[in-house]
Amino acid sequence: MLQDHNIPEEQYTLRRKIYIIIFQSNTGAGRAFDISLIIIILLNIILLILESVEPIAIAFDKIFNILDYFFMVVFTIEYLLRLYCVREAKRYAKSFYGVIDLLAIIPSYAEFFLPNWHMLMVIRSFRLLRVFRIFRMVRFLDESRYMLLSLLRSFNKILVFLFFIILLTVFLGSVMYVLEYEHNPGFHSIPQSIYWAIVTITTVGYGDVAPMTALGKIIASFIMILGYAIIAVPTGIMSASLVRQYKDMDNDDRVCENCDNKNHAEDALFCKNCGEALDTKPAKK
Amino acid sequence: MLQDHNIPEEQYTLRRKIYIIIFQSNTGAGRAFDISLIIIILLNIILLILESVEPIAIAFDKIFNILDYFFMVVFTIEYLLRLYCVREAKRYAKSFYGVIDLLAIIPSYAEFFLPNWHMLMVIRSFRLLRVFRIFRMVRFLDESRYMLLSLLRSFNKILVFLFFIILLTVFLGSVMYVLEYEHNPGFHSIPQSIYWAIVTITTVGYGDVAPMTALGKIIASFIMILGYAIIAVPTGIMSASLVRQYKDMDNDDRVCENCDNKNHAEDALFCKNCGEALDTKPAKK
Amino acid sequence: MLQDHNIPEEQYTLRRKIYIIIFQSNTGAGRAFDISLIIIILLNIILLILESVEPIAIAFDKIFNILDYFFMVVFTIEYLLRLYCVREAKRYAKSFYGVIDLLAIIPSYAEFFLPNWHMLMVIRSFRLLRVFRIFRMVRFLDESRYMLLSLLRSFNKILVFLFFIILLTVFLGSVMYVLEYEHNPGFHSIPQSIYWAIVTITTVGYGDVAPMTALGKIIASFIMILGYAIIAVPTGIMSASLVRQYKDMDNDDRVCENCDNKNHAEDALFCKNCGEALDTKPAKK
Amino acid sequence: MLQDHNIPEEQYTLRRKIYIIIFQSNTGAGRAFDISLIIIILLNIILLILESVEPIAIAFDKIFNILDYFFMVVFTIEYLLRLYCVREAKRYAKSFYGVIDLLAIIPSYAEFFLPNWHMLMVIRSFRLLRVFRIFRMVRFLDESRYMLLSLLRSFNKILVFLFFIILLTVFLGSVMYVLEYEHNPGFHSIPQSIYWAIVTITTVGYGDVAPMTALGKIIASFIMILGYAIIAVPTGIMSASLVRQYKDMDNDDRVCENCDNKNHAEDALFCKNCGEALDTKPAKK
Repeated sequence: MLQDHNIPEEQYTLRRKIYIIIFQSNTGAGRAFDISLIIIILLNIILLILESVEPIAIAFDKIFNILDYFFMVVFTIEYLLRLYCVREAKRYAKSFYGVIDLLAIIPSYAEFFLPNWHMLMVIRSFRLLRVFRIFRMVRFLDESRYMLLSLLRSFNKILVFLFFIILLTVFLGSVMYVLEYEHNPGFHSIPQSIYWAIVTITTVGYGDVAPMTALGKIIASFIMILGYAIIAVPTGIMSASLVRQYKDMDNDDRVCENCDNKNHAEDALFCKNCGEALDTKPAKK
Repeated sequence: MLQDHNIPEEQYTLRRKIYIIIFQSNTGAGRAFDISLIIIILLNIILLILESVEPIAIAFDKIFNILDYFFMVVFTIEYLLRLYCVREAKRYAKSFYGVIDLLAIIPSYAEFFLPNWHMLMVIRSFRLLRVFRIFRMVRFLDESRYMLLSLLRSFNKILVFLFFIILLTVFLGSVMYVLEYEHNPGFHSIPQSIYWAIVTITTVGYGDVAPMTALGKIIASFIMILGYAIIAVPTGIMSASLVRQYKDMDNDDRVCENCDNKNHAEDALFCKNCGEALDTKPAKK
Repeated sequence: MLQDHNIPEEQYTLRRKIYIIIFQSNTGAGRAFDISLIIIILLNIILLILESVEPIAIAFDKIFNILDYFFMVVFTIEYLLRLYCVREAKRYAKSFYGVIDLLAIIPSYAEFFLPNWHMLMVIRSFRLLRVFRIFRMVRFLDESRYMLLSLLRSFNKILVFLFFIILLTVFLGSVMYVLEYEHNPGFHSIPQSIYWAIVTITTVGYGDVAPMTALGKIIASFIMILGYAIIAVPTGIMSASLVRQYKDMDNDDRVCENCDNKNHAEDALFCKNCGEALDTKPAKK
Repeated sequence: MLQDHNIPEEQYTLRRKIYIIIFQSNTGAGRAFDISLIIIILLNIILLILESVEPIAIAFDKIFNILDYFFMVVFTIEYLLRLYCVREAKRYAKSFYGVIDLLAIIPSYAEFFLPNWHMLMVIRSFRLLRVFRIFRMVRFLDESRYMLLSLLRSFNKILVFLFFIILLTVFLGSVMYVLEYEHNPGFHSIPQSIYWAIVTITTVGYGDVAPMTALGKIIASFIMILGYAIIAVPTGIMSASLVRQYKDMDNDDRVCENCDNKNHAEDALFCKNCGEALDTKPAKK
């Protein structure tokens, strides 16, 4: 991530000061900046959501327009300041957060310079790109790193599991298509049947498509029980992965100099096997 | 919680005796009081529920009115007795249970003194506040403390998870809105699409809103599989947290005679804190 | 359970031989009897299910009648044999399986002696009592004891959890009733709203009742996410309980006579700490 | 699986070279073959799915016919090459993958030689047999072996669980049939009620069948809460099984020099099997 540049504090230039406020959060000003930014992003997302509700959009049309311009200006200034204060503007612009920051302001400009496009559906979708600003929130979640780590650790296994689920739904969807499509308009094609199989195996169960033949209902029952049972697989993988991670965090790798005994508790001061004093500072963590 | 005041038993005043009956449950009278109170609260909640069923409410209107007054009087007497017998009435009144006990009787008085309001919708809602009496049941669950502890222990992680789910549904709801809103009246606004995304990702799946376009169904399938897979996250967190808690409970209860340190490993021979030899036979198990 | 009576083998009477065939399964005849009984029970249950499908019931009316009498006779003979061969007929008759065996034949006799009742709805329900025969299958599941043990071990915690869910749904159902009942015929009374809250919090989501007001949808979204998150609680409890049980099964309580070291693997022949030979037969299990 | 035949590399015949390309994946050509095959199978499955969508099937009828023949030829050549290059053609033909490879090409030939059958429904179903080609993908998943192992390890317990679920749904379906069938056309027979019970207990909840009577809704609520709670059982079994498996994998890989025994505890100083001293420093980690 973004590290301290190790310049002595008294030589801080304006650029450096802005850097500390914008990119760091261990000073008062940095924290205030972070909190303001979170509030502004949240307000912007709420604005975007409200603009989609037609009666509200018509009633507050003018206010929404002004607020749109306001957020456009604020996010532009913020983006330019970030570009200005980092050491290598190019590297920031190419980074994950840099791209998201840019994506979040482009649609506003597209609408600003091409106002007659405003009515077009294409642009309407384009505006929604601003929803990407949500992902800027992730930056402020320290805890999320821990959970992402767990997810990545068992990523391979969960990927295999998802691939297996997709194979299964393609197969079961095709079987159900053969059984149902003559009697049931809901199963008019294999993609539709696969969609139904996913709705069923994940236990969502909308009910917009449901089997009608006796054999179809038997297969459907089988798919449901299967979906109900195999949810245990990703859950078990995640549980076991987290139990292991907790255990690793609990472990202490200090070795007693007298008897070579290991596996001491993290708060142990003396070897539990021979009573020899241990190093007071754990070697790990 | 509420502790014994350490007064010699023979000096117990009436106030003290009431206190023991109402607040403690290790005497016969105390247990009888607790059980009676549970039954009265349950009967009151059943009454509230039945009053909402129109045919029953009309048929038993008079009986319901009398029972309403009866419960009002009972809960008022109980509240006043509690205020009377505790050491600091003010502190009880401000405590969690004190506030709930008060909230449970206020609506009855509001109706009693303002009978012509009875017909108004606002008051009808107001009466429902008495449902808060349910939370008084929590007081009688010893086991619940253990589970609340587990929940609180992993509270931070589950909060991050919930926040992540909300970000995800806001994003996916917006995407589905763009894809569906021209072809599907169910996705008429972003809030409605977010509602649909929550219904889908939690695998509830009412089916009152369902995607209709091909692309919408593909994205919906993706959301379902996502919801089906990420349920593993809170489940894994809770499992790992409980496995750890059980392990802590399993730990040895030997106490070092030299430094009073506890929490030694089961196979420890010497105190990990001061190096003093421990009893070779674990006190427990 | 049913134990061997410790009579020398050569003195076995007919009664004793029948006992061994019916109640034990370690002889060839005993196993054959068990398997025949499983097949007969399964056939009887399939018959019961088919009798409820009107077109089938009309087409095969006579065959079904004959089969009904056949199963009646078979189960009666079996019941009488069991009564005859056990030591204390009274104790068997009062046991769990004895009561189920009796409940399984009574309805057939009621219909036999009161044939004009056959058309009555009451008797039709009465006949369904024979579905209780399903529970006789449990007798043949050895593995089920292990899982019941796990369930019972965490019974208290799961009961508290269920009680908590019921309190929550009563509360949330009442809140939704107040919000929705004027705009939505689906929420016409509190019991109906509680039913909806259970459908939602368990992520079943029929969709026969769904919120319509904006505030109702927000509360409903909250209930769904809650239900999605708290499923982690019983799952975590069960996982932790099973992890613990596996661990207990893994442990070996042998102690080295030379160095008092414990915690040896179950298949260890020598102490892992000092190399002293261990007792070859584990003390436990 | 398929092992190396241990022939010196310079003596490799054409047959042997084909064998290495087709059956092994540690050479460049072998990997290229595997990847091409995966792509061809995926394209074939996508073709099959698209053929079921009527508008697409009509528009691209000719292209689809040509592609069908193309895939028929490709898979036939591949099958014949496999038969040719393995040592024992008969053994491959009888193996799991051999049967699937054959099943994947037979339907194309049936259609080719009996073109006038093409219009018949039976053949249409027959063609779907080609979906079995999906299972050929499993061959390329190394990770899947690990997960199948976990599944098989807890197979017995999950089978008992599934059997228990089926007994339960048969029983609860019958009870609901008695309660609902006079007031609710959705519960017209016991099989239909069992179908509803499965839809409900697995928390799928289509809503095509839903209880209408008060008592039916109470029983349904009970079934939902039951389903919501017992999902903890397979999940717990899988979690505990995986935690145990991870623990086994964590174990020390030191081998006793005296008796070749493995699987020692990490803190073991002497071989648990013969008492020989072990290397003090674990080889792993």
